[in-house]
Amino acid sequence: MFEIDPTLNADTVLLGSLPLCQVRLSRDSQYPWLLLVPSRNGITEIHQLQPDEQQSLWQESSQLAQLMEQSLHPDKLNIAAIGNVVSQLHIHHVARYRNDPCWPKPIWGQLAPIPYPNEDLTEIVAIWQQRLEQLRGFTKP
Amino acid sequence: MFEIDPTLNADTVLLGSLPLCQVRLSRDSQYPWLLLVPSRNGITEIHQLQPDEQQSLWQESSQLAQLMEQSLHPDKLNIAAIGNVVSQLHIHHVARYRNDPCWPKPIWGQLAPIPYPNEDLTEIVAIWQQRLEQLRGFTKP
Repeated sequence: MFEIDPTLNADTVLLGSLPLCQVRLSRDSQYPWLLLVPSRNGITEIHQLQPDEQQSLWQESSQLAQLMEQSLHPDKLNIAAIGNVVSQLHIHHVARYRNDPCWPKPIWGQLAPIPYPNEDLTEIVAIWQQRLEQLRGFTKP
Repeated sequence: MFEIDPTLNADTVLLGSLPLCQVRLSRDSQYPWLLLVPSRNGITEIHQLQPDEQQSLWQESSQLAQLMEQSLHPDKLNIAAIGNVVSQLHIHHVARYRNDPCWPKPIWGQLAPIPYPNEDLTEIVAIWQQRLEQLRGFTKP
């Protein structure tokens, strides 16, 4: 049974699952920010996944990136596996805009998070789940 | 003919090429920091590459990450496609240590770069080129 890191769990909301990865929304409202978390225990680096799992990861990442581009029309996507604080492998997917509060810097380690108000969070989760239905193999929690 | 972005070219040294990507060393001496640059013009996002090119990219990234892990024994690898300043697609591969000057923050947009002294740069380029010879299809410039 896959166990999500408690910090990662607290900082994000589970939107659903693709064949390999959980799809999660960051609670920080300053940027459209999704995360893919491969549902495999004990993995901290991409190359530790099996070759077929790595291929699934990048197919899911590419599908998610295209969905974010089509839905949000960002100026740039930022995709990153960092994990210096939470080592459980997770891949950030962030839609960036020239007028967002952190542009052109990467968002990590910069501004304090501003959580979505609860009523907005419910709505944004529903919107993302509807969009994600387009991806092959997506299931809601 | 592939044309490298002038800023990317100025900030890095070409170590050689894999089948899809140029392998470059950041001139910033504060972290072991390599870049993969797919040698395709006009590409700014990973998902814009053809599916077989995306697969090559991640195979080359995974090989490079393993080489960095085996050579450097970092505490964590940070792998990221950002590109807010230089939009030509390039994927950072950074070996991070708990005692490096930026830990646990990601390195981008934090400290001013400290270039390698010229004599060290020649040596480090030679060391990396020797290590990279282990990777399938690597050729020096």
